[in-house]
Amino acid sequence: MKEVAIVGVGLTRFGELWEQSLRDMFTEAALAAIADSGLDRIDSMYIGSMSPGLFVHQEHIAPLLADNLGLAGIPAAHVESACASGGLAVRQAFLEIVSGASEIVLAGGVEKMNDGSDVTFALSTAADQEYEAFHGVTFPGLYAMIARAHMHQYGTTREQLAQVAVKNHAHGINNPYAQFRIPMTIDTVLRSSMVAEPLGLMDCSPVSDGAAAVVLTTAERAKKLGKPYAVIRTSVNVTDQIALHDRDNVASLPAVGKAAQQAYKQAGLTPEQLDVIEVHDCFTIAELVVMEELGLVERGKSGPAVMAGMTTLGGKIPVNTSGGLKSKGHPVGATGVAQIIEIAEQLRGTAGERQVKNARIGMAQNMGGSGGSCVIHILEGRS
Amino acid sequence: MKEVAIVGVGLTRFGELWEQSLRDMFTEAALAAIADSGLDRIDSMYIGSMSPGLFVHQEHIAPLLADNLGLAGIPAAHVESACASGGLAVRQAFLEIVSGASEIVLAGGVEKMNDGSDVTFALSTAADQEYEAFHGVTFPGLYAMIARAHMHQYGTTREQLAQVAVKNHAHGINNPYAQFRIPMTIDTVLRSSMVAEPLGLMDCSPVSDGAAAVVLTTAERAKKLGKPYAVIRTSVNVTDQIALHDRDNVASLPAVGKAAQQAYKQAGLTPEQLDVIEVHDCFTIAELVVMEELGLVERGKSGPAVMAGMTTLGGKIPVNTSGGLKSKGHPVGATGVAQIIEIAEQLRGTAGERQVKNARIGMAQNMGGSGGSCVIHILEGRS
Repeated sequence: MKEVAIVGVGLTRFGELWEQSLRDMFTEAALAAIADSGLDRIDSMYIGSMSPGLFVHQEHIAPLLADNLGLAGIPAAHVESACASGGLAVRQAFLEIVSGASEIVLAGGVEKMNDGSDVTFALSTAADQEYEAFHGVTFPGLYAMIARAHMHQYGTTREQLAQVAVKNHAHGINNPYAQFRIPMTIDTVLRSSMVAEPLGLMDCSPVSDGAAAVVLTTAERAKKLGKPYAVIRTSVNVTDQIALHDRDNVASLPAVGKAAQQAYKQAGLTPEQLDVIEVHDCFTIAELVVMEELGLVERGKSGPAVMAGMTTLGGKIPVNTSGGLKSKGHPVGATGVAQIIEIAEQLRGTAGERQVKNARIGMAQNMGGSGGSCVIHILEGRS
Repeated sequence: MKEVAIVGVGLTRFGELWEQSLRDMFTEAALAAIADSGLDRIDSMYIGSMSPGLFVHQEHIAPLLADNLGLAGIPAAHVESACASGGLAVRQAFLEIVSGASEIVLAGGVEKMNDGSDVTFALSTAADQEYEAFHGVTFPGLYAMIARAHMHQYGTTREQLAQVAVKNHAHGINNPYAQFRIPMTIDTVLRSSMVAEPLGLMDCSPVSDGAAAVVLTTAERAKKLGKPYAVIRTSVNVTDQIALHDRDNVASLPAVGKAAQQAYKQAGLTPEQLDVIEVHDCFTIAELVVMEELGLVERGKSGPAVMAGMTTLGGKIPVNTSGGLKSKGHPVGATGVAQIIEIAEQLRGTAGERQVKNARIGMAQNMGGSGGSCVIHILEGRS
């Protein structure tokens, strides 16, 4: 299979960007990625966005954004897999390059959540509308059920959940693109207003606007650009039952485990060989369960591992050096692309104060809904 | 490039399907396509749907539908390009097979439009929200402007527009899946209530529920199945400015012309070599302009050509033997897939009373919005 590389990255700041529309944000990120790549053409484009229809009443965003970028004419496609839409955009760009149909493809993600729409309602459309959302369950509620099950089965504590937020905010302080560059203490998290017991406000990722974009090309062409880049060792997309009640064990996220196994097998790697990981911490509990599904710790051992600093920058395997969804923000369609950007920066050695020393192999784990879909990329740095 | 074939097709009836939900419809079409293919596995899945979020408050439909089909686990992706979403799903499936990542891929399209939502509002999100929809323009309005410009520049008449509806209804009578299997006269069209001058109700495709699915695999594997199939000679996706006012000539659809030129070039064909065509007749004027963009007639000559029967079954080049969007119905996400199914049936010789004699090469032209995107497939029959 043809080797594909990421040669350019671009981001907007994540946050409440009241002065930027969806198209403004996407174009800012895309232009930054193209400039960073040093390339002078784009053959095709994929855009991940969960629900521009519900958030800003705009579908048909692929031609709209291609046009706004000055590229009307090229093939462009909007892809959606709820909060995994960004990872999916990168995967589709990867497949198109492997197919030989295009040589230089832009993969972007964007979401404009702060524009007057009912965010909780819009996000609930990522759950099973007829069997979950219809009955009033929202996303904090679904992840609260996962948290309760995990606490019940493994003795996980609210303090352990809180430590995920504390760690990610400590990382995010050094990320100039992060929405909340503020320190967090366990006490602050525990005393934050309850959203869905046992998850307080500080266990939840925020509502964010933002965009992210990467430029992909063949590894062959990347080499000629004469600067560090990241190759995609594997790109995996796995689905699962989207309704929580259909799963055998509510304290698990089977799509993540399955995607990780496929990714390790395809790349010929073990979890121990990863130097840095971005995971989908939409809620603090999500990061804990994902750590277990990725095989970083045994099932049920994620809470103590986070408390011991295993996943803190400087620890055994740094997780979410970007600040994660919790501190960096979570414009849902952009998140999967932003995760890949953080890994690419780490592997190029351009992550500044967040840099993991000698990082060579990294993973980005992006997830849709309460684990109904999972997209995993493993990247390797080259120079 | 690896050759890809369509080996199974499945459809629901199009219409007001009040007793079927989005997932029910998709699963019916997908199971029919899988059964028709004779294959016993699906490696991956693409679903085209314009706005399940706005129509039925359900995003994240890729894992939902994979699960409902009994295939939770496989990679699945939802793709959107407004009314060209179905064609786009087939194109992405095609690219995935060419990449070698999967060997058997299901491409489906689905839209549940009759479920209480504001259809005109939901469809308007395919236009430029900030510069068109915001000011109150809806889709009949946009196509009415195209029609007026065409009438002004070329002398096209309301009778010529009406004849498109008359022809397509005459074809649709023989399609068991069509929503309106009723004959139509020019007089009925002209006397139908005005929607957006000069387009009356009978110049507009209806609001429909429905699903369509095809199974794609390598031509190598298709050959071993021992029955007629259709290979994809080319798959093209082109974007354009989505706002009508940004275009040089409102009486044209440049994305269609560009896509057609690319398709002919890639397939090494001329318009004269096509035996049957499905075009995107969301409004009668659309079929006329598309005929010109495809090079079937000179610019401005489509009206007289339709009146002369050039595109009627039995004529020089039959267009929309399925009944087109006008008679068959237009569940937007399903339309592009259903067009490809009609062409595949024609090339396999299984189109019944709609059969074009000795059809060997056919084209499906699918379009998003008022021409902001266009997906064209050219298929060739093999046995």
